[in-house]
Amino acid sequence: MILRLAIIGFGNVGQEFARLILAKRDWLMKQKGLDIEVLAISTRSKGSLLSKRAIDLQRALDELADKGHLRGYGPEVTDKGPLEIIDNCDADLMIELTTLNAEDGQPATDHILNALQAGMDVVTANKGPIAYAYDKLRSVARSRNVHLRFEGTVMDGTPIFSMVERTLPGCQVTGIRGILNSTSNFVLTEMSKGMSMEFAVKEAQARGFAEADPSMDIDGWDAAVKITALANVLMAAKATPKLVRREGIGSVTSKDLEDAAAQGKKLKLVASAEKDGDSVSLRVAKELIDPSGPFWSVEGTSSAVTIRTDMMGDLSIIETDPTVTQTAYAVFSDILLVVEAIRAGTL
Amino acid sequence: MILRLAIIGFGNVGQEFARLILAKRDWLMKQKGLDIEVLAISTRSKGSLLSKRAIDLQRALDELADKGHLRGYGPEVTDKGPLEIIDNCDADLMIELTTLNAEDGQPATDHILNALQAGMDVVTANKGPIAYAYDKLRSVARSRNVHLRFEGTVMDGTPIFSMVERTLPGCQVTGIRGILNSTSNFVLTEMSKGMSMEFAVKEAQARGFAEADPSMDIDGWDAAVKITALANVLMAAKATPKLVRREGIGSVTSKDLEDAAAQGKKLKLVASAEKDGDSVSLRVAKELIDPSGPFWSVEGTSSAVTIRTDMMGDLSIIETDPTVTQTAYAVFSDILLVVEAIRAGTL
Repeated sequence: MILRLAIIGFGNVGQEFARLILAKRDWLMKQKGLDIEVLAISTRSKGSLLSKRAIDLQRALDELADKGHLRGYGPEVTDKGPLEIIDNCDADLMIELTTLNAEDGQPATDHILNALQAGMDVVTANKGPIAYAYDKLRSVARSRNVHLRFEGTVMDGTPIFSMVERTLPGCQVTGIRGILNSTSNFVLTEMSKGMSMEFAVKEAQARGFAEADPSMDIDGWDAAVKITALANVLMAAKATPKLVRREGIGSVTSKDLEDAAAQGKKLKLVASAEKDGDSVSLRVAKELIDPSGPFWSVEGTSSAVTIRTDMMGDLSIIETDPTVTQTAYAVFSDILLVVEAIRAGTL
Repeated sequence: MILRLAIIGFGNVGQEFARLILAKRDWLMKQKGLDIEVLAISTRSKGSLLSKRAIDLQRALDELADKGHLRGYGPEVTDKGPLEIIDNCDADLMIELTTLNAEDGQPATDHILNALQAGMDVVTANKGPIAYAYDKLRSVARSRNVHLRFEGTVMDGTPIFSMVERTLPGCQVTGIRGILNSTSNFVLTEMSKGMSMEFAVKEAQARGFAEADPSMDIDGWDAAVKITALANVLMAAKATPKLVRREGIGSVTSKDLEDAAAQGKKLKLVASAEKDGDSVSLRVAKELIDPSGPFWSVEGTSSAVTIRTDMMGDLSIIETDPTVTQTAYAVFSDILLVVEAIRAGTL
């Protein structure tokens, strides 16, 4: 089986994913009978490629590393934008990896809609569309008989969505709590060791997981988008991030962390979703965590989620010190699950 | 679709499972188009039933509650043993829930082999057969084109086996660490609060999760069987529990726990499996746990496992305060996954 991809968005995650499929090429062929070809790569400002034949991924990676752009790649270079690339590409599956727009999930939502409507399966690590337009995207995917997977949107490749969907049949999720934003958790961890917030943020930027403008993380926006995505998918919340009661960690002082420690506790930014009658109440808030709960050991860039269920009680899953490799794996594993579903003829 | 079951072993878990399918009967029909009928119930000492038509589960439960046995149920009462019942039953799927024999996994392994060879799917919560005969059982299941699932063997219904199999495609498990035995963890937790071991064991017995003879738990045997089952399935260990380097908690004193606390640590019984060249090294040992790891908050009857993988790093999953409901759910969820696989035509 040959699976042809269009990769829309080719930053750190996209490039790591490309390296991953290069490294796993033999394994994919031998173990899964699967040959993955990339027919399009779209970047915002570094040039884009569109081809009828497989793009040489190694060369594309090398050009980006050497020249900083793809504009010298060859006749495959295109000046088409992402929507045009999707419409003109023969890919079977579109991978959406553009930068999050936390305000409305666009243009990623339109990229996904166009791909689904063109009959492509879609895998994304972009949480905006799942937080803003999950019900619509799911209904279009079902009506076109194609697959939509998005494990990488929350906690990288940690299987949260897949775990509920594929291993907990018949279980209803009645609540979710999580430490979902690496930067704010890292900043709180470093501050509790005596570092200033300013310095901790700079350190997070230096290590590459905080943006130049860290306000999305510090203000709780990133966590709000993630808990909305979780609640939309796992609790049918029909929410958007704007409905989340949200506070950030911007006002946290060293004194606050010392006070927490004096009580034998830690201050953490916790995102939560709870059933509230027929609706779901969403919140991102500072909480005092005590050592008896599963979040106690979740420090630095680690993250965790507790899913409350009717039949299995509380299940917690912790991801320790993730890197971009884990997000690339999320895309890789989603693709394998799509291929498995195609072969089984299931949606 | 009608799915006909034979239930071999009908103690706490079997009875809770029976209550669960009674409670979920409408849901199963409406959501899954599935009607579950039980054609056989085998108990060791309380009488057994074998029928061509659906047994009235509520009546069987009531008889057990009222009279303590099934021998007054009616013409369905049989004096056949479990193997004969399996051989003479028209069931599609056999559920093995007899008591663990940690010495050799028998007779449960033979029950499962007979059922597989008779073309039945099998679901079990009995860890003995998976620890002693996994490779053989899997190969018989494959050769007969039937399903074998066993989520309930470790950490109740917490999806460990299913998580690796169904949500982490392409990931290799390179190590496993777990707090897998409720009784010993509960005893250590209570002892660290000042209770004596003797009293803590009695308390565990009073609460119903420790056996009359608690040595299986205290001596680390139960944990050894569980880590062997995990390693056989997830790491192709081809081991038996007798290969596990094993120590128990029998010699732990209050002083040991005080010393650990004085160092800011806790003493826990940890089961582990590690790659060691071409083989897998298995161990159950007391370990000093520190607050930076995911096992810190795992107290009382809670349990946890950390799976080390090549592509996703360390993933930890924690089950909080499980009851027999969670083990019954393991059987229930395995049945639903078998039904899904039958419908998709996959193994």
